[in-house]
Amino acid sequence: METDVTTELYPRERVAQVQEATAAAGLGAVLLTPGPDLRYVTGYDALALERLTCLVVPAAGDPFLVVPRLELPAAAESPAGGLGLELVPWDETDDPYALVAGRLPAGIGSVGVADRMWASMVLRFRDAMPGAEQVAAGRVLGRLRVRKSAAEVAALREAGAAIDRVHARVPDLLKPGRTEREVGRDIADLIIAEGHSAVDFVIVGSGPNGANPHAELSDRVIGEGEPVVVDIGGTMPSGYCSDSTRNYCVGAPPADYRAYYEVLLAAQEASCAAVRPGVTPEAVDAAGRDAIAAAGYGEYFVHRTGHGIGLETHEEPYIVAGNLEPLEPGMAFSIEPGIYPGAHGARIEDIVVCTEDGCERLNTTPRDLVIIT
Amino acid sequence: METDVTTELYPRERVAQVQEATAAAGLGAVLLTPGPDLRYVTGYDALALERLTCLVVPAAGDPFLVVPRLELPAAAESPAGGLGLELVPWDETDDPYALVAGRLPAGIGSVGVADRMWASMVLRFRDAMPGAEQVAAGRVLGRLRVRKSAAEVAALREAGAAIDRVHARVPDLLKPGRTEREVGRDIADLIIAEGHSAVDFVIVGSGPNGANPHAELSDRVIGEGEPVVVDIGGTMPSGYCSDSTRNYCVGAPPADYRAYYEVLLAAQEASCAAVRPGVTPEAVDAAGRDAIAAAGYGEYFVHRTGHGIGLETHEEPYIVAGNLEPLEPGMAFSIEPGIYPGAHGARIEDIVVCTEDGCERLNTTPRDLVIIT
Repeated sequence: METDVTTELYPRERVAQVQEATAAAGLGAVLLTPGPDLRYVTGYDALALERLTCLVVPAAGDPFLVVPRLELPAAAESPAGGLGLELVPWDETDDPYALVAGRLPAGIGSVGVADRMWASMVLRFRDAMPGAEQVAAGRVLGRLRVRKSAAEVAALREAGAAIDRVHARVPDLLKPGRTEREVGRDIADLIIAEGHSAVDFVIVGSGPNGANPHAELSDRVIGEGEPVVVDIGGTMPSGYCSDSTRNYCVGAPPADYRAYYEVLLAAQEASCAAVRPGVTPEAVDAAGRDAIAAAGYGEYFVHRTGHGIGLETHEEPYIVAGNLEPLEPGMAFSIEPGIYPGAHGARIEDIVVCTEDGCERLNTTPRDLVIIT
Repeated sequence: METDVTTELYPRERVAQVQEATAAAGLGAVLLTPGPDLRYVTGYDALALERLTCLVVPAAGDPFLVVPRLELPAAAESPAGGLGLELVPWDETDDPYALVAGRLPAGIGSVGVADRMWASMVLRFRDAMPGAEQVAAGRVLGRLRVRKSAAEVAALREAGAAIDRVHARVPDLLKPGRTEREVGRDIADLIIAEGHSAVDFVIVGSGPNGANPHAELSDRVIGEGEPVVVDIGGTMPSGYCSDSTRNYCVGAPPADYRAYYEVLLAAQEASCAAVRPGVTPEAVDAAGRDAIAAAGYGEYFVHRTGHGIGLETHEEPYIVAGNLEPLEPGMAFSIEPGIYPGAHGARIEDIVVCTEDGCERLNTTPRDLVIIT
């Protein structure tokens, strides 16, 4: 059962797709170390270690997976072990960079390195293959990863439902007199209890802390009538991530807050309504931003509208002015405008997927301000 | 109180030390993105994000910290905010790589990039500074980080004591009929309960899984009389890591296991006894390895003897054949020989610190096989 799910989410043909895209991009090979690119291509959730693990996909010829001998059992048991790839172990006193270089054709002109490869490895590869220009493998992988398959959308939908269940329980946790940190710890426990395998972030921004989009959990005591921004996310066992923001208030909120909250709600709706194939991320950003500016709050919306999501919480496509790459069906990203005047702030965030003719929201808890009485 | 500890562990003079070392290494600047190098130099435990945060330390002139405007409050509140560094924010549609390049002297010949910087950032910096050769900043930072200060040793001692308290409670968790995963989850909870802020890894290798040094938690049921390798570690709020391995058996172990366990215990002791200033890591490795080989188990010791530890679980110095850099007082690393015949295996691991005339072990729970009756 689990194997079937894995095969659907991480299909066998990915390695061949990457090889084709590598050749089409004019690269000699791509080198993928542990991280989201390697997992996307093979399903292998390899540990990031100082010992080199690297999937080598040449433009032509057989791909192979270089692994420290200690990791050979883990690699063989992972989904990567079922792909028919040659596993090439190396021993503690070997030079695995020379090993990779020696197995690639001499005179290779360029290689793609995984976007998240550590610099120490990038530089070792550069020195082992001095004639090969290094480029970001995202040039090859990005085009594949940015359009989610039906199985990936299902995995994101499952992640969205899990974080929605957490948000549904937040009202039970927010009480005047509790600190952000206390509430945040309870939320972290719920993120795991509702099916995630890791907590990626928990923001509980009360009062003025809500006006800091990336507030850290603090010992600030939540007061009566204070708006609270709750932005939370985690990673599911599938590897796919959740991320959703809702706004709560224990008791009646200030009148000025109520006024801009309605503007924000309409702006978030406007950006979501703009999503369809062919529209640019810049236009999706502008739809909400213009609504906020028209209401006089433009200076308080200090960040981009959103980020792509999948095996990483932040990935392509970024929903920001200047991004003119048209949306396509299967692209998944956040729509999260915010207004942050200072004494308090608000942000409403859903993950959405671009469909054939619009968008599907993967977070479906009410977006209205939740007043806890 | 907390501020004092931070100042002692992350002293203000580190930035100046790095600048001096940068000039001495003939580099034009070092570029430190979120990760252990940035934390070591500034105390700032910055989030690793796609938006660039980067401490720029030129060989001459004022260092500065480039931060996304969203992270400005976090950076200002972090220990880095108290160092008198200029904080240089950038906005969502700015190019922060061009910003860094534009503030460095034109014609800079070389830059050090943090060893764990993401490749995507390394390549953006390369393109923004095409005339500057990139080298690993480890060349500069490594010499500083490898010799721990008294405050760092104290932080590692505290981490060691915390993981020792977890090991002391492992006998209560190991019962025939429980799975590795069940025991592993309980251990993870204890790692947090005993003072760590994060669980880094939990290995519970029973029977044949104990013969795989990097076994993952499985649903294997632990049987009566089966040896179990428990290798666990986490990160403390200080940023410093723990890592210790002990061996348990529920009921009487097999006779062949008892025989090689005694050999292993003596080998671990031999490697520890070899530690003192001026001795090479290769010699420390050989001391234990020779003892194991002399007893006829050489082929079953399949990995290096150890790794350095500090802000990373694995860092310099590596205790391995070929490493001829003499040990110095303040170097901290694991001593963890293992014997893995196949039906079961064993590994004994302590973190030790090289002192003026020998070594101090930071893990002090009994190293004998723990037989649970």
